[in-house]
Amino acid sequence: MSEGPKEQGNKELAFIGRLESLLGHPVGNEHWIGDDAAVLDASGHDKVLLTSDLVIEGVHFDRSISSPQDIGWKALAVNASDAAAMGGRPWRCVVCVAGANSDDLDLLYEGLLEASAAYGCPIVGGDVSDGALLVVSVALLATTEGATPVFRSGARCGDALFVTGPLGSSAAGLRELLSDKAARGPRIEAHRRPKARVDEGMAAARSGATAMIDLSDGLGLDLHRIAWASGVGFDLDTVPVFDGATHDEAIGGGEDFELLFTAPNEKDVRAAFHAAGLRPPIAIGRATRDKGVCTLSGAPLEALGYSHEIS
Amino acid sequence: MSEGPKEQGNKELAFIGRLESLLGHPVGNEHWIGDDAAVLDASGHDKVLLTSDLVIEGVHFDRSISSPQDIGWKALAVNASDAAAMGGRPWRCVVCVAGANSDDLDLLYEGLLEASAAYGCPIVGGDVSDGALLVVSVALLATTEGATPVFRSGARCGDALFVTGPLGSSAAGLRELLSDKAARGPRIEAHRRPKARVDEGMAAARSGATAMIDLSDGLGLDLHRIAWASGVGFDLDTVPVFDGATHDEAIGGGEDFELLFTAPNEKDVRAAFHAAGLRPPIAIGRATRDKGVCTLSGAPLEALGYSHEIS
Repeated sequence: MSEGPKEQGNKELAFIGRLESLLGHPVGNEHWIGDDAAVLDASGHDKVLLTSDLVIEGVHFDRSISSPQDIGWKALAVNASDAAAMGGRPWRCVVCVAGANSDDLDLLYEGLLEASAAYGCPIVGGDVSDGALLVVSVALLATTEGATPVFRSGARCGDALFVTGPLGSSAAGLRELLSDKAARGPRIEAHRRPKARVDEGMAAARSGATAMIDLSDGLGLDLHRIAWASGVGFDLDTVPVFDGATHDEAIGGGEDFELLFTAPNEKDVRAAFHAAGLRPPIAIGRATRDKGVCTLSGAPLEALGYSHEIS
Repeated sequence: MSEGPKEQGNKELAFIGRLESLLGHPVGNEHWIGDDAAVLDASGHDKVLLTSDLVIEGVHFDRSISSPQDIGWKALAVNASDAAAMGGRPWRCVVCVAGANSDDLDLLYEGLLEASAAYGCPIVGGDVSDGALLVVSVALLATTEGATPVFRSGARCGDALFVTGPLGSSAAGLRELLSDKAARGPRIEAHRRPKARVDEGMAAARSGATAMIDLSDGLGLDLHRIAWASGVGFDLDTVPVFDGATHDEAIGGGEDFELLFTAPNEKDVRAAFHAAGLRPPIAIGRATRDKGVCTLSGAPLEALGYSHEIS
């Protein structure tokens, strides 16, 4: 046996040494952590999806509200959600962490590994470094399992518009936590442990979805993103509001991570979700010819939602 | 044409709109920026390498010394170097940026795109967000072009040890910049624009390299990483020092990004480098049976180099 880095008394090396045992064994002839890059077996995958997102202290989370476990979960789940929004299934990911102390690293990885297990997406490599702020960056590969990926640009006039669940839960949960850090319940859970709608995205893709996006920045903004990309408008009849959230939180709150998608045939969509044992998607409106124009019950719906300000 | 996000007056959206034109057109049936994930054509690639690294202000760069262009270059080049260290060729990458203002973003992308062109590795997606510190995270996919990836663990007793160039240039360049921000020359260039040794890594892999690593943290530490992973020791006869650098900078400075590798047949290695039109690698020693023990001219060589402290 080689002398291991554990004996060097350096905590970064020691953590990476422990990580190798935490992350489990590579599949088949793959080779994961311990080298400069992970080796993945891509044979059998014609198409792969690649996405990356980072979460940074003070922007994507507040450490007085979110535990390191929650931050780890979220960092991976938001990437799984991006894959879901294309109809993809998370496959492999790598994680970089900066600015975590040794205790936080363990807890952060608890959450990362919970999400990794929940989405069947092994962490195959990563890096740890110093930093004055906590940053967690995840890059994720997904597979389409032979299906055609769904873009934002395919919505056509007349398509039905669906959302996979009621909205505003995360924003409502954050509001509750800001007034009472001990608050508990489904909105708090939605804020702390957002779910990526992977099975829903695949069901939507299989049932003819023409455009899809995950609601990371709020319905107001993300709906317009589909409208702009597809060259259509949308007339909404209704916005389903999560129990205990406000109408504004449902439209502008963001971080719901429900999927918003269009499809020409509502029956096919309902059948696919039913066959997959999923909660039925909610039809909320339809695509129109009015390029970029979105309305709710006839009144203009502005492109408002969370967006990062660059000074 | 759809109304674009540019009309929304939000700088993040406007930048991402501009990015689509900056990044060039997808190859074949791929689909790059503009959706939640990039779609890549993996057919023909049995194995892919995946690596990710982030650079963060105050740890990996000092904004009073490095320009945004240099930071962008470095963020991509360090990932290309990780691929090179496995014998891989950079293929596609995604970039997340936090904490850059609008002007910095443009300059940062100048450097990112220069490195992207230099390594033939298109940026296929990414994300921009707020942040109190500048963070650039790159995840990179590489291909092995049918060759077997080279790990850290394959060095065998008797193998010759090579490095692809003299060491200490980056540390010397940083030292010079700290005393004179207007300093110029090859060491400054080496610090600001580190080169990933992609062709060298592929030549080493083709000529029977048994273990390889890129010198990101300094010879002292990275040599021990190969020793630990392979279960060997190393006797070094010499350490090639970059002109104007010190012996200590060559051993412990880090960020040289030259490749350190072992191979059983020195002639094959020299022939492969010659055939590829590359500078000959420098033989600096050989692998021994003394697990984890590294010496230079008979004296102990400690596992010192840059490593991140986790408190």
